[in-house]
Amino acid sequence: MHDQTAAIIVIGNEILSGKVADTNATFLTQELRRLGVTLKRILVIPDELDAIAEAVRAYQPAVDVVFTSGGVGPTHDDVTIAGIALGLGRRVVRHPFLEEKIREFSGDTVNAARLKMAEVPEGAELIFGGQLNFPTLRAENIYILPGIPELFRDKFSAIKERFAVDPYFLRVIYLCAFESSIAGYLNDTLAVFPDLQLGSYPKLDDPEYQVRVTLESKDQNYLNRAFADLMARLPAECIVRTE
Amino acid sequence: MHDQTAAIIVIGNEILSGKVADTNATFLTQELRRLGVTLKRILVIPDELDAIAEAVRAYQPAVDVVFTSGGVGPTHDDVTIAGIALGLGRRVVRHPFLEEKIREFSGDTVNAARLKMAEVPEGAELIFGGQLNFPTLRAENIYILPGIPELFRDKFSAIKERFAVDPYFLRVIYLCAFESSIAGYLNDTLAVFPDLQLGSYPKLDDPEYQVRVTLESKDQNYLNRAFADLMARLPAECIVRTE
Repeated sequence: MHDQTAAIIVIGNEILSGKVADTNATFLTQELRRLGVTLKRILVIPDELDAIAEAVRAYQPAVDVVFTSGGVGPTHDDVTIAGIALGLGRRVVRHPFLEEKIREFSGDTVNAARLKMAEVPEGAELIFGGQLNFPTLRAENIYILPGIPELFRDKFSAIKERFAVDPYFLRVIYLCAFESSIAGYLNDTLAVFPDLQLGSYPKLDDPEYQVRVTLESKDQNYLNRAFADLMARLPAECIVRTE
Repeated sequence: MHDQTAAIIVIGNEILSGKVADTNATFLTQELRRLGVTLKRILVIPDELDAIAEAVRAYQPAVDVVFTSGGVGPTHDDVTIAGIALGLGRRVVRHPFLEEKIREFSGDTVNAARLKMAEVPEGAELIFGGQLNFPTLRAENIYILPGIPELFRDKFSAIKERFAVDPYFLRVIYLCAFESSIAGYLNDTLAVFPDLQLGSYPKLDDPEYQVRVTLESKDQNYLNRAFADLMARLPAECIVRTE
């Protein structure tokens, strides 16, 4: 089964100070799952050069694809490009194509802040697509996305097909039992199906069920056999329904 | 001004696989800000021993307080206690008080899964409070909170006063202007007030304003002077309103 791993780095003081709730990581998490990509980390850091560089150094070699969100605007707190360049050991350069576009758009009002948006880590690729004229930047395996949720979604949707790999298959069992009463059955199934991704999630005060058990694999046949194995072990009176 | 730094480690495959959207980090972020605590990192990792230990080793010495969310139940995927113990170089031990409580509660149905919930990193403190009989665990500066949102909130609310420090003060300016047109004014104010926390957040398709500028400090007088400085620089016709 073909797999691909990813990490998301959200850059933004506004998230860490609770002024804005993140929606980009939540959106991207669900999109990546649908594409069959395995998300290994989500990290939220401040708009600080060293924090960005450190995150890039940690994740860029460790996963197949890194996505950053935020910090790519024209103001003092937009230091994502410089932070990624620092982390990759590249220079920050003004990209001729972006500079031309910005000068065209700005005319007489061109200024340092606008031209800052032409800056890229040296050697970055421009990826065109989406409803916006402005391209998405890629430096090595890092895709640099804007923090504004509408733009983030537009940009990612325009490039997402390139990340598609074999999908995950999911089965769910809803149970009326204490988690601690069924833990042994889960362990028994895992002993037979060690590659199964098995999750157990208690729910409080739900009239329908107490525990939601999720079974996942990229191998549908393996998943079905593991599901049948667990169902045969669980006391029938505990099973509310399955999906 | 008294400050305190924090990090949140969310442990859960269900978050990374998009099956459940995190609400605990979002809740805690806002609570910490209200308490005057400066949040430096939010990290979401899988239910894996090594990932937890690595996060503990990175954050425990770097900030004043670490909070973990999730992975403290009775099933195979609950490895937070073991991961924290590994990261701190401590053994996992069964706490006599917790064991007694669990045996009392379980009676004849006591089993390995239930007794797993008596396990703590050696030397951990039990903190009582909240609506639940079950205490919160503290190991060094790490507070170990449950992943179920209702319990997470209850547990944190019961201990939160111990984290209160000097609060942040916030002013906001709503502007009708391109972010790139006001970037220079923001830089000018920052040159005079380098300790100001200054954020600039564009909004798309809002009939009222284009940019929200936030000014923050723990020093209210410093904040008021910085606010007056920036207001004097900004073109009056751009200012929609202030908070």
